[in-house]
Amino acid sequence: MRGIVGFYITYLLCLILGIACVVLVVHWNFMYRDGFAWDGSSKNFNWHPVLMVTGMLVLYGNAVVVYRIPLTWGHNKLPWKLLHAGLLLLSFIFSVIGLCAVFNFHNVHHTANLYSLHSWVGICTAALFTAQWVMGFTSFLLPCTPMAVRAFVKPTHVWMGAMILVLSIVSCISGINEKLFFVLKETTNGTKPYSALPPEAVAANSLGVIIVAFGLVVLKILSNQMWQRPEPGDDEGVYRPLAYDGS
Amino acid sequence: MRGIVGFYITYLLCLILGIACVVLVVHWNFMYRDGFAWDGSSKNFNWHPVLMVTGMLVLYGNAVVVYRIPLTWGHNKLPWKLLHAGLLLLSFIFSVIGLCAVFNFHNVHHTANLYSLHSWVGICTAALFTAQWVMGFTSFLLPCTPMAVRAFVKPTHVWMGAMILVLSIVSCISGINEKLFFVLKETTNGTKPYSALPPEAVAANSLGVIIVAFGLVVLKILSNQMWQRPEPGDDEGVYRPLAYDGS
Repeated sequence: MRGIVGFYITYLLCLILGIACVVLVVHWNFMYRDGFAWDGSSKNFNWHPVLMVTGMLVLYGNAVVVYRIPLTWGHNKLPWKLLHAGLLLLSFIFSVIGLCAVFNFHNVHHTANLYSLHSWVGICTAALFTAQWVMGFTSFLLPCTPMAVRAFVKPTHVWMGAMILVLSIVSCISGINEKLFFVLKETTNGTKPYSALPPEAVAANSLGVIIVAFGLVVLKILSNQMWQRPEPGDDEGVYRPLAYDGS
Repeated sequence: MRGIVGFYITYLLCLILGIACVVLVVHWNFMYRDGFAWDGSSKNFNWHPVLMVTGMLVLYGNAVVVYRIPLTWGHNKLPWKLLHAGLLLLSFIFSVIGLCAVFNFHNVHHTANLYSLHSWVGICTAALFTAQWVMGFTSFLLPCTPMAVRAFVKPTHVWMGAMILVLSIVSCISGINEKLFFVLKETTNGTKPYSALPPEAVAANSLGVIIVAFGLVVLKILSNQMWQRPEPGDDEGVYRPLAYDGS
């Protein structure tokens, strides 16, 4: 019972931090960056941080902890598998549109694509995420896949899931940092530079801190052996802990 | 035996990637950033990436996997504890000097300190690392600490160790990305901007990719239950896996 209460407190924190991430990234781009459009302008770019943080981080993070919710344990696993895969598909769609937003902005402005370290890490994260989704769908949702294959693939699937989250945090933080140096420059009309920590910098830096906190809470949920879904039927091999923190 | 061979192959990869990180960060700052000095100039700043990557990432990463080396399992644990704590102390000293380098550079140039998201995440990482070292020393090296306290603290210590590594990767990548946008600007004397991927950009981006690879390999070593040090005497409580990937 203590384990379940502990889980729900941590899960509540995960939900609150996830919502805070989405609210803050929308607030930043709406209040300080002129909002959204799909016209190749900087308003087009603004979809990039919003969709990557919402898709690749918040939806992704919530999708990977679905099996940890004790409320789901007494039921057939298939609906939760579909929810897990569905949330990840939504996360993937958000991420693809988010990538299209930055490519469109760059192409209209004749700016090179994929040159910064942020973009190198980010595109690798997206590629790994795609491979992971395809591997997960093929292994765990196609009925024809033998149980032995599922048991063989599962530990790698669980491990890769956590590592993609780590890469996603790295991509988000380096991207927000890069964007702030791009846009917060001292101008003659009195705009404060990033180094003077204007309100926009405080808002976006706080978003970064909350992103890190959200990521660590998700990794904490994944790590706790007591919060693993029991697998009495062991229908896909033993679902061993990704990580254990003993609490 | 298969597990041990697998460990040593992964550990060799960890050592090679660690050395590659140090060589590349020195190469970048020596070849493209005019080398090193302690005079408040940009040469003073150059110690910052070199010491943070070497200390907070490579030495730290090697320190956290010391107990996983099977060669050490048959022996008294104390010397390995001292090696673990000693490597982390060296990592801490490198990090403090690395931080002094950037503060000194900023102060001489009357630039604000700790305003960027990179600096916020980085200073939190350094603070957590300090707290972790003090907690580790007090709990596991002071002979007067009761075994019950060690057993209670150990899972949090192991968990925090991995999370500090994640934060360290985030700090390194955002910092390298930031530095490249600062220094690689188009000039009238033909210097190529970051977006044209001049040789310096390729070198530093590659450093970033190798840093990520090193971090993932260390997290992989920490995760494998088969590579845990057996604790027959259970002298500090059960040393349970940080993470498990089933391989």
